[in-house]
Amino acid sequence: MKIGFIGLGRMGSGMARNLLRAGHGVAVYNRSREKAEALGREGARITNSPREACGGSEAVITMLSDDPAVAEIVFGAGGIASAMENGCVHISSSTISVAFARRLATEHGGKRQEFLSAPVFGRPEAAESKKLIVVAAGEVKAIERCRPLFDAIGRQTFVVGSEPWQANVVKLGGNLVIASMLEAFGESFAAMRKAGVDHHLFLDVINEIFGSPVYKNYGRIVANEEFDPAAFMLKLGLKDIRLVLEAADELAVPMPLASLIRDHLISGVAHGQADLDWSSLARVVARNAGLES
Amino acid sequence: MKIGFIGLGRMGSGMARNLLRAGHGVAVYNRSREKAEALGREGARITNSPREACGGSEAVITMLSDDPAVAEIVFGAGGIASAMENGCVHISSSTISVAFARRLATEHGGKRQEFLSAPVFGRPEAAESKKLIVVAAGEVKAIERCRPLFDAIGRQTFVVGSEPWQANVVKLGGNLVIASMLEAFGESFAAMRKAGVDHHLFLDVINEIFGSPVYKNYGRIVANEEFDPAAFMLKLGLKDIRLVLEAADELAVPMPLASLIRDHLISGVAHGQADLDWSSLARVVARNAGLES
Amino acid sequence: MKIGFIGLGRMGSGMARNLLRAGHGVAVYNRSREKAEALGREGARITNSPREACGGSEAVITMLSDDPAVAEIVFGAGGIASAMENGCVHISSSTISVAFARRLATEHGGKRQEFLSAPVFGRPEAAESKKLIVVAAGEVKAIERCRPLFDAIGRQTFVVGSEPWQANVVKLGGNLVIASMLEAFGESFAAMRKAGVDHHLFLDVINEIFGSPVYKNYGRIVANEEFDPAAFMLKLGLKDIRLVLEAADELAVPMPLASLIRDHLISGVAHGQADLDWSSLARVVARNAGLES
Amino acid sequence: MKIGFIGLGRMGSGMARNLLRAGHGVAVYNRSREKAEALGREGARITNSPREACGGSEAVITMLSDDPAVAEIVFGAGGIASAMENGCVHISSSTISVAFARRLATEHGGKRQEFLSAPVFGRPEAAESKKLIVVAAGEVKAIERCRPLFDAIGRQTFVVGSEPWQANVVKLGGNLVIASMLEAFGESFAAMRKAGVDHHLFLDVINEIFGSPVYKNYGRIVANEEFDPAAFMLKLGLKDIRLVLEAADELAVPMPLASLIRDHLISGVAHGQADLDWSSLARVVARNAGLES
Repeated sequence: MKIGFIGLGRMGSGMARNLLRAGHGVAVYNRSREKAEALGREGARITNSPREACGGSEAVITMLSDDPAVAEIVFGAGGIASAMENGCVHISSSTISVAFARRLATEHGGKRQEFLSAPVFGRPEAAESKKLIVVAAGEVKAIERCRPLFDAIGRQTFVVGSEPWQANVVKLGGNLVIASMLEAFGESFAAMRKAGVDHHLFLDVINEIFGSPVYKNYGRIVANEEFDPAAFMLKLGLKDIRLVLEAADELAVPMPLASLIRDHLISGVAHGQADLDWSSLARVVARNAGLES
Repeated sequence: MKIGFIGLGRMGSGMARNLLRAGHGVAVYNRSREKAEALGREGARITNSPREACGGSEAVITMLSDDPAVAEIVFGAGGIASAMENGCVHISSSTISVAFARRLATEHGGKRQEFLSAPVFGRPEAAESKKLIVVAAGEVKAIERCRPLFDAIGRQTFVVGSEPWQANVVKLGGNLVIASMLEAFGESFAAMRKAGVDHHLFLDVINEIFGSPVYKNYGRIVANEEFDPAAFMLKLGLKDIRLVLEAADELAVPMPLASLIRDHLISGVAHGQADLDWSSLARVVARNAGLES
Repeated sequence: MKIGFIGLGRMGSGMARNLLRAGHGVAVYNRSREKAEALGREGARITNSPREACGGSEAVITMLSDDPAVAEIVFGAGGIASAMENGCVHISSSTISVAFARRLATEHGGKRQEFLSAPVFGRPEAAESKKLIVVAAGEVKAIERCRPLFDAIGRQTFVVGSEPWQANVVKLGGNLVIASMLEAFGESFAAMRKAGVDHHLFLDVINEIFGSPVYKNYGRIVANEEFDPAAFMLKLGLKDIRLVLEAADELAVPMPLASLIRDHLISGVAHGQADLDWSSLARVVARNAGLES
Repeated sequence: MKIGFIGLGRMGSGMARNLLRAGHGVAVYNRSREKAEALGREGARITNSPREACGGSEAVITMLSDDPAVAEIVFGAGGIASAMENGCVHISSSTISVAFARRLATEHGGKRQEFLSAPVFGRPEAAESKKLIVVAAGEVKAIERCRPLFDAIGRQTFVVGSEPWQANVVKLGGNLVIASMLEAFGESFAAMRKAGVDHHLFLDVINEIFGSPVYKNYGRIVANEEFDPAAFMLKLGLKDIRLVLEAADELAVPMPLASLIRDHLISGVAHGQADLDWSSLARVVARNAGLES
């Protein structure tokens, strides 16, 4: 397919590369041109504006940091909403709010453009190695049309609903489950340390119980305090939990565990951890127990 | 080895059976004789009192429901503390409190008896099929001596410290991590239901992310509300979380996630869920969101 | 002074009336004209637009429900920002967000207009009887100029800072303290009911301890479940707690008590309590304990 | 009346003194004799054992620190349970657990002795100046008989039930309400400090709203950090909240606010605040927000 790809951060670059590898024609745009050039050497067409990336594309994928960044690209001066041709589909893979996903659907719909939400699970390595999990939602025909794109970037695609924002609810729910694991690590590791039990040994037990690569990977990061450089910054984790709680509010679902995690992440920010990995949530819990890292 | 085994509930029966299979001489005692007789047919010596189960044994394993049950068997009239020979080791595999494990160590020590804590992770099926995870702590020589017993009942043994109570901290910490997963399921499933997303589909995404048999198994139980009959009753889960919080208090570790789970389990009791599976914690969360099951 | 007054709800009407009584010239505007007419009979000049209410005024007071309502009146077509004369001061008495108060200060400042935040504490009866507590913040000279207005509507004025938004932080903090009392009532009353203690009797004890009219008043409302009609609706209470948490996030202050109250208010919404008095927070707690009201 | 009084700490001394002033015959016992002697000079009969304090008494009041201390005095060797004459009533004014109050009622009942719970609200100054609030529960005739004693020590007596333990539930519920105020102070003061608002000024607003001497007094202590010496130590506050949560568990009432306070008090212990005033709970909250005191 002929597509535009906007947003070449660590996640986006990997995704765009796999689209190229799968034989799609990819026009890329990134605010700082440098990252685009790397992909240009692999066959991407480098463009100078979001608008240009839309030209002649059947689909435009955005992979940006948050709601305002997407809003700027879509609705800003020279934004894609005014450049996409009839029938072109905007696929948002960013972790955005449910309310904003709904707005995107409405606005694109009003212009006879299509809109799909297709956020992904996986860290940058997974994006690079085509191991992302894609969660897509939206009008069923549009999804079927775009399936080759999802297949190109991930190891599996889940279609979770006919309203695009439902995919965002799933993405946020998944992030909450991951964050809950981090909080559980934090509390149990702190107890182990104060009980004189090697928390690495405790982690071995947990890994034997759960047998999960995610527990294994994050458990190691937390146990060794590998928080810097961050694979996913605490301030971004806080942003995601904010979105979880906004969605919870709108859906009228009390989420005390999400609230607890939010408060701990805020405490992390208050102690200078904004740019550390979000798994340093565990450091907040340890600090509350009087432990120094 | 020649051992006594006290407590033949669903967990204890499986453990005793695997000890027999491994060639150990096992004298069993259970309050209701019926369960002992089943093991008698497989080669166990049936006894009429805890005292008798100690006679000539190098080790006595207790697998009982809680602190009072263990206290009764150990310190009650005709209890094993007055029957164990010098050098005999009491191995407690029950999920007991840290404080009580400490008391057991002191009291046995005062009588020149040995004491090990060796709680296990795994549901009854795992006990039956020798797939338990054994977490042992205590004096190193005693542990080495008893290793053949641990090997007989579980798939792996972790030695986590030289103080028996440390094994109980690990067991409680592990249960907290499992309970945290249940709370996370509860909150995210409730959100999915109110967002019109099939929560089974959400669970598929979670399973693809975590790739953990524990998530898969508990996730299915929660998604299908397979709470009755209970594999592990909510009231026992509450007992365990109480022990987690007691240990947390003693160690001076704030555990807000454990507190949150405790409050939800109490709400479950208030709504008649005491005898349902503890994963019905998710039903409490759903109810708070106005969802009926 | 010559002033405009916009927003004649239950709070605003009482405030405008007391400004008239104190001899100020008051031009009133309200979306539904009916309420304005009542004040017209007491000497107010009735106007047909916010713009008209500004004409010739030294100050314009807005008393509206939330951020969007204030934004509409100030920045909407025909809004007061384009109608206020140089040197005219906009006094916002609404409970608005800290971020929006900051925006108001910036935008008015850019037009050489002045801006003060002066939210108030007190229920509608207090507004009527000139017993409000006024919390003002902003540029000191503007505050001194407007002091006669504050004196006219309340029993006491506190000047809490030179940045307008600081008054909003104080207002939100005060609301949190009140909401905390409601949560404490909820939890302790539920315990009394399940312990067979008359919770009215418990409230008598609490009142003897605290000797506070606020405890007495709210305590009676909660004990008797006088939730309908609402003096202050639960959905508005939730709005305020949302603003508390937004401010907390921005200031990097974890507020687990505010989070807890938010989750309970959301549960209230999920159970159809949105239009009941916000003190029906206590009903949420009782429900979680298995009590029916 | 002829009474025994056991436990002459800061609270007990004031209470015994007021009983003397009211003309009752008071036989006192305290572990360290020194405090008894002070009362001896005011007319009390000094005794050398709890047993002796019971001799000929119509009632025996105990005012001790916790369950174990009361258990020791009542059931220990030479305890009052074996010394009280038929018809003598044991009045427990200590803050003890609901379960232990129930045990006391049963055990005294079995010996044809009477038992009342009559815990009190008020700090040591209130005990000295006869301003305590007495909360009594138990068999109605026994309460009527002892009313002159309650009248002698407090400014008001509330009879809350016919089961002694119900008074303990009321006492614990009241302490929870007070602790909730402390948590609310902690969170709102931290927000004020980070917003650049003088928290003393915020407290002035709160005091104007609530008009409560308890808010005024504790508010000043928290605002000025007058935590040392403690009027009521944090570790004792934690003990009380533990009892609140035990009662909540037994009554099947989720109490997330109590849980939250417990976790903060534990964090206080972890940071060396055990012997500071329990209002230093606010320091825990401030620390979590990155504020140093």
